[in-house]
Order: sequence, then structure tokens, then C-alpha cells
Amino acid sequence: MTSTDAYAALMSHFREIAALGQAAMVLGWDQETTMPERGVTQRAEQLGVLEGISHQKLTDPRIGDWLAVIDRAALDPVQAKNVTEAEHRHHRATRIPARLAEETARLSAHAQGIWADARARSDFAAYAPTLSQMVALKREAGQALRDADESAYDALIQDYEPGMSERELSRIFGDLRPALADLRARIADSPVKAPPLKGPFAKEAQIALSRELATAFGYDWSAGRLDFAVHPFSSGNNGDVRITTRVTEEEPFGCLYSTIHEVGHAVYSQNLDPALMFQPAGEDAGMGVHESQSRSFENQIGRSRAFAEYLFPKMRDAFGDFGAADPEALYLQLNAVETGFIRTEADEVHYNLHVMMRFDLERALISGDLDVADLEAAWNDRFTADFGVTPPDARRGVLQDVHWAHGLFGYFPTYSLGNIYAGELVATLRQDIPDLDSQVAGGNMSHFVGWMKEKIHHPSRRYMPRDLIERAVGHAPSSAPLVAYLERKFTDLYDL
Amino acid sequence: MTSTDAYAALMSHFREIAALGQAAMVLGWDQETTMPERGVTQRAEQLGVLEGISHQKLTDPRIGDWLAVIDRAALDPVQAKNVTEAEHRHHRATRIPARLAEETARLSAHAQGIWADARARSDFAAYAPTLSQMVALKREAGQALRDADESAYDALIQDYEPGMSERELSRIFGDLRPALADLRARIADSPVKAPPLKGPFAKEAQIALSRELATAFGYDWSAGRLDFAVHPFSSGNNGDVRITTRVTEEEPFGCLYSTIHEVGHAVYSQNLDPALMFQPAGEDAGMGVHESQSRSFENQIGRSRAFAEYLFPKMRDAFGDFGAADPEALYLQLNAVETGFIRTEADEVHYNLHVMMRFDLERALISGDLDVADLEAAWNDRFTADFGVTPPDARRGVLQDVHWAHGLFGYFPTYSLGNIYAGELVATLRQDIPDLDSQVAGGNMSHFVGWMKEKIHHPSRRYMPRDLIERAVGHAPSSAPLVAYLERKFTDLYDL
Repeated sequence: MTSTDAYAALMSHFREIAALGQAAMVLGWDQETTMPERGVTQRAEQLGVLEGISHQKLTDPRIGDWLAVIDRAALDPVQAKNVTEAEHRHHRATRIPARLAEETARLSAHAQGIWADARARSDFAAYAPTLSQMVALKREAGQALRDADESAYDALIQDYEPGMSERELSRIFGDLRPALADLRARIADSPVKAPPLKGPFAKEAQIALSRELATAFGYDWSAGRLDFAVHPFSSGNNGDVRITTRVTEEEPFGCLYSTIHEVGHAVYSQNLDPALMFQPAGEDAGMGVHESQSRSFENQIGRSRAFAEYLFPKMRDAFGDFGAADPEALYLQLNAVETGFIRTEADEVHYNLHVMMRFDLERALISGDLDVADLEAAWNDRFTADFGVTPPDARRGVLQDVHWAHGLFGYFPTYSLGNIYAGELVATLRQDIPDLDSQVAGGNMSHFVGWMKEKIHHPSRRYMPRDLIERAVGHAPSSAPLVAYLERKFTDLYDL
Repeated sequence: MTSTDAYAALMSHFREIAALGQAAMVLGWDQETTMPERGVTQRAEQLGVLEGISHQKLTDPRIGDWLAVIDRAALDPVQAKNVTEAEHRHHRATRIPARLAEETARLSAHAQGIWADARARSDFAAYAPTLSQMVALKREAGQALRDADESAYDALIQDYEPGMSERELSRIFGDLRPALADLRARIADSPVKAPPLKGPFAKEAQIALSRELATAFGYDWSAGRLDFAVHPFSSGNNGDVRITTRVTEEEPFGCLYSTIHEVGHAVYSQNLDPALMFQPAGEDAGMGVHESQSRSFENQIGRSRAFAEYLFPKMRDAFGDFGAADPEALYLQLNAVETGFIRTEADEVHYNLHVMMRFDLERALISGDLDVADLEAAWNDRFTADFGVTPPDARRGVLQDVHWAHGLFGYFPTYSLGNIYAGELVATLRQDIPDLDSQVAGGNMSHFVGWMKEKIHHPSRRYMPRDLIERAVGHAPSSAPLVAYLERKFTDLYDL
């Protein structure tokens, strides 16, 4: 077999794996939005079989044969990236013993129900044994996966943020935590308050406005659609990227801003290089970069003063007097800062404090420095230190997120990485597009999206996340631009 | 390996094949109803990969090893059926050379476009070379698949109607053709005419009524949903069986009766034995039996005088004065008999004449007795003989159906088999349920559906179609009950 033949065989094999993954994605979307309730048993079996076949294909020993024959020096950069990714995925799949994969899948399948019951009753003790088992399994997985210079937690991060380490995360997060804790304390003392919303907000009008905003942000409706889901998400790639939202008559920003958030993810996925579809190098760069897009769309642009100018007349048309007298009042409503217990409801100032706390707790769980039995107390201590208040119950504390029940350890930090990358990217694109604010105020987001498309979307997975950001902004990513942006924005808004 | 282990391995293998097939079914439904237009390229690749993996699994040589070890005498009837089906599918998959499968898939993929273009221009010559290639490939497939005592066409039929042969079809169809040709000629001379419909018919009202009728016919909404499609279809099995319909303001019966038709298919699929899900014996019995359900629901019940009594007040409520003064006038509207050129628009009297003509033409193509170059002339000659009129152009003649472009040879006769089986089944169930008409007139279809569930739905694929029908009605199926039903119904309706 020649090197060319081996490369072709490897790519054909990973093309099948990619197609299986896309099929599973569509089945997952269908399950959340469309599937009749009695379809759930069959769907689990269908997804289990697709997952099992993908795993068989990833561990296929022929991958090793092909890799041995391929002459790496003869590959162009995209081919080289494809081979590196294929090798990496093959190694990771083969390093996890079948017994461990099965136990984790089985535990994950029923941990979610145990977590949901425990959360409903605010009873952490009822969930702790299950979480302990999951921590043990993920620790074992991290040990099996890690390279010599990595920690077990480092190895787990790689599924979500390739090339990242807990040391590097600690460095990047280092300055962010004190800056945010200080900012939130100063805002809490400010007399400035956002005017209250005046509803109700008709659902049809919210959906129509959500569609209009999605269009303004460059969402391609010929390659997507909008549906409803309890927990909004986006799903798919290239020519088929679907978004979901939720809607309630009490307030409109949940619908509008979850739509803009998902549109950020979706426009990224729609703009991935179509020439690389079904190749590893044609995928997205990772969760941090993905979140940088949703956060840039939702926060950096969507909660800017310029965007409030654009949005205000549309809100008036849709809802009449909604409680804000002018764009400036809407701007304040969009950036109301309040100390809350729930991560998913947090504002830009508090959000990363929620995340960094989870990062520190979960790596302590994986390293063994923290026992699950002590997790609730550790959570409440840390929360009190960072937020100045103590969660009244486990439901609003340690039991609020499903992630750990799914075995997602190393995932949380990508949320804050996304905010940090967004801070870097938008700071740089503001230099490249000096009149960005007047464009946004006029509803023209095309230069913003075009910049992201060129620098972030089209490169797809050609580069590691850190390198992709560095190529876009000219230096290694740090939290400094995000901190500067938040300081500037909230000092101004809250007269600090 | 013990016989028990081999059986378990075989079933696990076919469970994966079934799950892949179900996943492909959901992706196909999504493509027709939901998918954004730009998703089509990816979807083709996803479905191609699922199909390729299924084929690999069907041809897996381990199947032969397992079959060799299994002790057939130790199996219960369901297990024995599973093994027979697995063996049959494995043999058929391995008998088709990879080259032939690929050529057929490739030709089928672009034949549809060539057919659509040719149909739009009524230009059979533009399609003939493509159809010739397809006929040659299917003839080769039939030769590769056939057992010693089968014709090539017989072998092709097996995918749609297991155990059937062209000789048996000719026998069953034998008396039907002259009876129908005679009946249609007599109706054409009748002065009785259905009163014209008075529209428009609001789409929302049609959909609401379609839903009500689906519910009345036992469709389980917790295991299904109704969407729109250009060509209505039903899709899925057991807990997830979806139906589609189409709607136009000009007339309501297209929407209502395509819904009832698809509900017939869907209720069958919902009622398949859940204990056998993902096993070959748990599938439907074949296309003829499937069509017997859609035709029983749509025609035998849905176009009965009793059903017109039930439907009339609902039509009045939904549409006001729609052109029928009483249930009897609606009954006539539901059974308007007109000589048309298009199969899919045909009434109960003409429909089987359309089908039997295609059966005779397609088996002549496969046997080589008819050349594609002579097909248009043969079509028009036969049509003129059976219908008394000649198709004015190829669009309304030989080019009207897409089936042959997809390589579907041996499929058409299952439509008429469905009508014949429906005639047998409803004649027998009318003996078991003497007051069926008064039940139907009162909107109670539960005994009708219950009888079908017990005799046809729940047995799933335990028996060959012919045996299943014979078990239900007590004798080998023939067209006599269908002919008697049509004679009785239309002699009465048209004062013949």
C-alpha cells in the first residue's frame, strides 16, 4: 500500500465516522424538538448502535496500519492536520478499556435521573454516591488517557479544548477572578438600577423578532431552521445547522438573547469550510472557540449600547411600551447586574465567577484533593467568598448543573474561555472596523460577521484553538481585554 | 460456540442492522418534511454511509458461521423465523456483486433527475437510455438473486412481497382485469353523477378534520405526529410512526383521504409486536399486507356509505355547504368514477387496471420480451385497450411514475395485492362484526381496528404474507371478494 492509498483509506474511514456523528446529531435534535414521546426507547437504541459502530471504527486496528504507511513529510498542512487528528482520536479510543466505556455509559444513562430527583428535593446526599462513582470512572479515564506530562484532568479537557491544560487555565483565569469579584461588589453598591420590564410580551412577536435578529446576524435560513426546546441549543454543520429557543410571556430577553447566542454558534457552524466537510480538519476548533462566537454575538455585540439603539424601536414596534423610555434605558435593562445563585441566569459580570468556581471544584474532585462528601460544603464556602451570599439550598447550589451527571469534567472552563476569546477577538476587530458601533446601531452586522468568518469560521479545525486565536489577534490570549471591556462598560453604565 | 451463543450473536448483529435502518428512516422523514434545503448534500452522504454499513453487516461472513452452528430444531417459531429471515437477507446481500450494487445506486441517484426532466418535457426518448440501463442492471440483479425455480422477476418481487411469484400474481390478477374493465365501461354509461364540490376549503379546517379522523381510526398521537410533504407517506415503527399529508384549498378529499390512507399504514406499524422490536420477525409482513391496511382504512371503510354518514355533519361543520345535500350525496362524491390517465388520482374501479398494466409491462421488460424502445407504444396500446382512451402525452402516460427510475421492479403489483387482501380481510371481518356499518356510522372504528390488530398487526412478520392472510380469512387469497365488493358497491351507487 502506498502512502497515498493509506491516506485515502484513512480519510474514507473517518468520513464514515463523521457521517455517523452527523446522523446521531440529527437524531438528537429530533429527540429534543420533534420526536413523539413513545419513541424514546427506540431512539436510545438507535443512538447506542450508532455510538457503538463509531467506537468500533475509531478503534479499528487498520488505522494503525494506515498511519504507519503514511509519509507525513509528503502531506500538505490540511492533510497533516487530518492525520494528527485521526491518530489522536484513535489513540484516545483505544486507551479506554471497553469495560470502562460501558460502565461510564451505563452510569451516565441513569445518573441524570438520579440527579434530577435529587435536585427536585434539594438533597445532595441522595446524589453523592452516584457522583462519587462518576468521579472515580472519570479519574480512571483521565489516568488511562493522559500523556506523561499531563494530569488526569488535563487529559479530560482535551475532548473540549484541544491543547489546553489546567495550569494554563489557572494562569488565564488568574487575574479574572479578583477583577470580577471587585467589579461585582462595586456595582452592588451603585444606586443605578435598570427600569423594570412592562409586559406581557406576546410569544408570536418574540419569535418574529428573534427571526429578524437571526437574519441580521447572518443566519442562513436556507441552511437552518428555528424550533423550540426546553434548553435551547444549536446543532449541525455547514448546510444544515438548526437553532432552538424558548419563549415565555413574562419577559422577552430569554427568547431573544438565547436566539442570538445560538445564532452565534450556528453561524460559525454554517461557515465552516465546505471543502473540508466530513474531514477532521473541517470541524469546529473546540468548545472554547465555539463559545467565543455565541458570546461575541450575544454579549459583545448584542448587549452593546449600539445594539440597544438598533433594538429599541423594534422592541417598541413589537411590544409597545415595554418599560424602557429610550435606547439607553433598554441598554441598562440588557445589562442588569444582579447577584444570583444560578449560572445560566447570570449576567456578564457574575457569569465567569460561576464557571471558575466549578473549574476549581471539579479538578479537585478528579485529583482527589476534594471528596464528593465534602463537595456541598466546598461549593457553599466558595460561593459565599466570591458572591457575598450563601446558596439557600442544594437546588440553587451544588445541584444546579447536569454536566457532572453526564460525566462532563473539563467542560465548564470552556464557557469562560469563550468569554475570554470573545474579549480578545472583539477588541481586535474593533481596531479593524473603527465604525463598528455605528454599523451595529444601523443594524449592519455584516462586517462583524465577515471578520469572524475570515478569522475564525472558515479556518475550521486547521489550527489548535490557542493558535487560531493568536493568529486572529496577534498575541497569546489572556483575560486582559475581557476585563478591560467589562470595566469600561460597567463603570460607565453604573457610574462607578 | 454453542447454538444459543450463535443465535444471540446473530440477533445482536441484526439488532444493529435494524437500528441503522430505523435511523435512516428518521433521516429520510426529516429530509422530506423538515430539513433545510442546503442540507441535501450532507444528507445523501449520511444515508449513503448508513446504507454502506448495513450492507457490510449483511454480508459479514460471521453470519454464515453463526447459521452453521445454530440448531434449528431447538428454536421456537419466532426464533426460527428470525433465523430464516437473517439467512435469506444474508444470501441476497452476498449474491449481488459489489460492482452491481454500486452501479445501481449511482444510476438510481441521477436517474430520478433525468426522469423528472423528461417528464416535464413529455419526452420519453430523453429517458429511455437511462431506463434501459436500469432494466439491464435489475435483470442482472434478478438473475443473480433467483433460485433455480424462479424467474429474474420473481427474485425481484421478494424484496416487497416475500414468497410471491409472477405466475401466482397472474393467477390472482387473472379474473380482476376483465371484471374491472367491464365495470368501468358500465359506469361510464351511467347517467348518475356526483354533485360538484363547492369550495374553497380552508386549510386549517382540513387539517383539524384530518387529525380528528386519524384519532377516530386509532392513530396514537403519543407515538406519532402529522406533518406536510409533497408526496404523503408514513414512516417508522412501534413507538415512533409519523404521517404526512398535503393540503390545497380547492378540494378537501386529497388531504382527508391521504391522511386516512397513511393512518392505515401507520396504525399497522404502531401495533407491531413491541416484544419483537429490532428483530426480523417484528417487522411488517411486506408491502402487500401494508397496502391492505391503508386501502382498508381509506376505501373499504373510509369510502363506505356508513362512513359518509359519519363524515357528513363533520364536513358541514368544517366547510358549510360543500356541495352535497346529504350523506348519500357525499357518498357519491367520495366514489366519483372517472377515467383518468394518472394512477395516483384513480378511483377504486380504475386503480387496479393501472397497476396490472404496469405489472405486465415491467415483467416483459425484465424478461426481455419488451424492449425499452417499444415501451411507450406498448403503454399506450394497453392503456387504450383497458381504459378506452389514449394518453395524450408521455407525461400523462409512460413517464408518470418515478418507481422504475429508482430501480423498483416488482413493487407495483403490491398495490393491487393490497386491494385484494383488503377485499378478503374486510369481507371476513364483516362476518365477525355484523353491525360494522352502524359502528362506523357512529364513528366507532375500534372493532374494525381491533380485528386488524389481532389478525394482521400484532403477528408482525411471523408469517409469510399469503399465510398471514389465509390464517385471517380461512382460505387462500383471491380477487373474488374484492370484485364482489366493487360490483355490489358500484352497481348500487350508479344504478347499473
